Amino acid sequence: MQPDLLDLHVLHHFRTRSPLTHCMTNDVVQTFTANILLTLGASPAMVIEAEEAEQFAAMADALLINVGTLTSPRAQSMRRAIESAVAAGKPWTLDPVGVGALAFRTRFCQQVLTLKPAAIRGNASEILALAGMSAGGRGVDTTDTAARALPAAQALARQTNAIVAVTGEVDYVTDGQRTKTIAGGDPMMTRVVGTGCALSAVVAASCSLPGDRLDNVAAACGWMKRAGSVAASQSAGPGSFACAFIDALWNLEAQA
Amino acid sequence: MQPDLLDLHVLHHFRTRSPLTHCMTNDVVQTFTANILLTLGASPAMVIEAEEAEQFAAMADALLINVGTLTSPRAQSMRRAIESAVAAGKPWTLDPVGVGALAFRTRFCQQVLTLKPAAIRGNASEILALAGMSAGGRGVDTTDTAARALPAAQALARQTNAIVAVTGEVDYVTDGQRTKTIAGGDPMMTRVVGTGCALSAVVAASCSLPGDRLDNVAAACGWMKRAGSVAASQSAGPGSFACAFIDALWNLEAQA
Amino acid sequence: MQPDLLDLHVLHHFRTRSPLTHCMTNDVVQTFTANILLTLGASPAMVIEAEEAEQFAAMADALLINVGTLTSPRAQSMRRAIESAVAAGKPWTLDPVGVGALAFRTRFCQQVLTLKPAAIRGNASEILALAGMSAGGRGVDTTDTAARALPAAQALARQTNAIVAVTGEVDYVTDGQRTKTIAGGDPMMTRVVGTGCALSAVVAASCSLPGDRLDNVAAACGWMKRAGSVAASQSAGPGSFACAFIDALWNLEAQA
Repeated sequence: MQPDLLDLHVLHHFRTRSPLTHCMTNDVVQTFTANILLTLGASPAMVIEAEEAEQFAAMADALLINVGTLTSPRAQSMRRAIESAVAAGKPWTLDPVGVGALAFRTRFCQQVLTLKPAAIRGNASEILALAGMSAGGRGVDTTDTAARALPAAQALARQTNAIVAVTGEVDYVTDGQRTKTIAGGDPMMTRVVGTGCALSAVVAASCSLPGDRLDNVAAACGWMKRAGSVAASQSAGPGSFACAFIDALWNLEAQA
Repeated sequence: MQPDLLDLHVLHHFRTRSPLTHCMTNDVVQTFTANILLTLGASPAMVIEAEEAEQFAAMADALLINVGTLTSPRAQSMRRAIESAVAAGKPWTLDPVGVGALAFRTRFCQQVLTLKPAAIRGNASEILALAGMSAGGRGVDTTDTAARALPAAQALARQTNAIVAVTGEVDYVTDGQRTKTIAGGDPMMTRVVGTGCALSAVVAASCSLPGDRLDNVAAACGWMKRAGSVAASQSAGPGSFACAFIDALWNLEAQA
Repeated sequence: MQPDLLDLHVLHHFRTRSPLTHCMTNDVVQTFTANILLTLGASPAMVIEAEEAEQFAAMADALLINVGTLTSPRAQSMRRAIESAVAAGKPWTLDPVGVGALAFRTRFCQQVLTLKPAAIRGNASEILALAGMSAGGRGVDTTDTAARALPAAQALARQTNAIVAVTGEVDYVTDGQRTKTIAGGDPMMTRVVGTGCALSAVVAASCSLPGDRLDNVAAACGWMKRAGSVAASQSAGPGSFACAFIDALWNLEAQA
């Protein structure tokens, strides 16, 4: 990736605006998600009780909805947060973890899709399922490549007016008309839990930045790809990789 | 430990089959558990809403039930997941965290013990309590040595037909007749939260592999012991140890 | 910081008594909190179902209440745990994360303030809000300096008879009459989620130690500041910092 593809002006916006990012995400990736946002300069907050989620979604700059460990009470809180964010004009992002494979979360995601998400970030199986083009993956893993899901992503973007990022070995970011392609990264990223979920949080935060939303979301994908490449070259396994990945995001400008 | 005791053929099965492992575990160890499974090549998924847990337990290769932060709704979801796994012929593993010391989880574990677990992994106090031979430990810590709990483990194995692993400074894995002993590891493993809980997840996944289940569970214990020894020799404290531990599991074959 | 300010005699108490610390804390910091307590020699346990929380609070040496991801069921469990701890003569500590900014948790904290906390640890905005002197911060971030909140901390200490620690670039620990000032640390501590929440857990545990509670709480703050300084000098970003921070707490005596 050339330095200019790191979209350093977007990164500058990210670091200086420090978007207050309301994360309603799954139990497995809370810490990693918060740390990824913090290393990039954002301000994460996980607020989940329905009353508070509704109040906070209107105060925050951006909202992330990740259904990885969705429960009934959490689904209710999320719906109230989404409605509050939309009413306040704040962008919200959907990470449809495991959609297609599991019925409860698939119903939930189909319902909230009508509530005008700013962005959707998923793997190929999830995007195919959300677009109604697949029966879904093997649990939360993807069984399709991102490239194969690109038409579904484009259709989903046109249907919802959201920016759709379908990520994998190569990431595709589309608004239904234009599509950006982000290569790079490293397979080691699939051996640390939460790299995709954390990307969704960065996408959510980037939707609050000024400028072209397609560019902002693509920039977020590019930062993670770059950090993955840098970290893989510096680590002896997934343990040291996870630390090096956070450090690499911290040092993105120096590496450009 | 000699190379052959690493049971590299079991590790080969583990890495190539990549067991889809449904983890219903406690709030404290979710990330570490997922990362340990990922570094060993398994595919973890945490699915907890009752409807989904029931659906997913039948799809997954193995189920882990860990009661560390058990709540009433979680207990209901777990029971449905267990019944679904059993009906689908999938092995499930119990980690009875803190059983004996706390009444609510003790009742729950006694109830699900009748649902044919494939394996049980606990420390000495927990295994003694589960076998009805002790009033329990000090919270989640063990106050007994694994050796002292071996008769209880053997009795519990005969009673439930499960493989029982009672772990500590030395691990004992028994089917009630045969017993395997696994030494090694390092006290530093007790200064990182979740090493025992993560072992239970690896045990759960290993129960889905072909071959002798006693061997498979003992292999899982051996990998963790080995990684603990290697990591302790490379770290300056529990922080660097946790990273090195994951890296060591990643590199098990190279160290054999 | 001079060696003597590390309060090595308090650290010696901490390591040898290994306080069993009942943590009812938020979803984001559970692992980090447990690992910080473990590296310092304490014995953490997260127990949350109401029946168990009540039972365990009486058995443990200390209780931590952190409202970062408070929910209605968790609030009920917390109240029962607090009442049980108080009845058993065990100290409990409040971390009022985000109080002032969010109404639900603010009401909860105002209610439990009457239940005789041994200590309260928060940032400037939270302490100002709890003392009724501010409308609160921007989410969970602080918008005030600790120094500006010192009068509020002193008033809150006098009102509740708790030790109040208001932390930031400089920490102030007060019983309403005496005030200790702890400098040091590093801004990198704000780029890793949970350093403040983990400090609250260490404060909670330190309240169970013999000696002057003001000294014990100030010692806890000093250990974290010292570890932050040491770790910052050894790390390339927040990822390696988090590991080095835990290692530095492990090696506090060697660094004195």
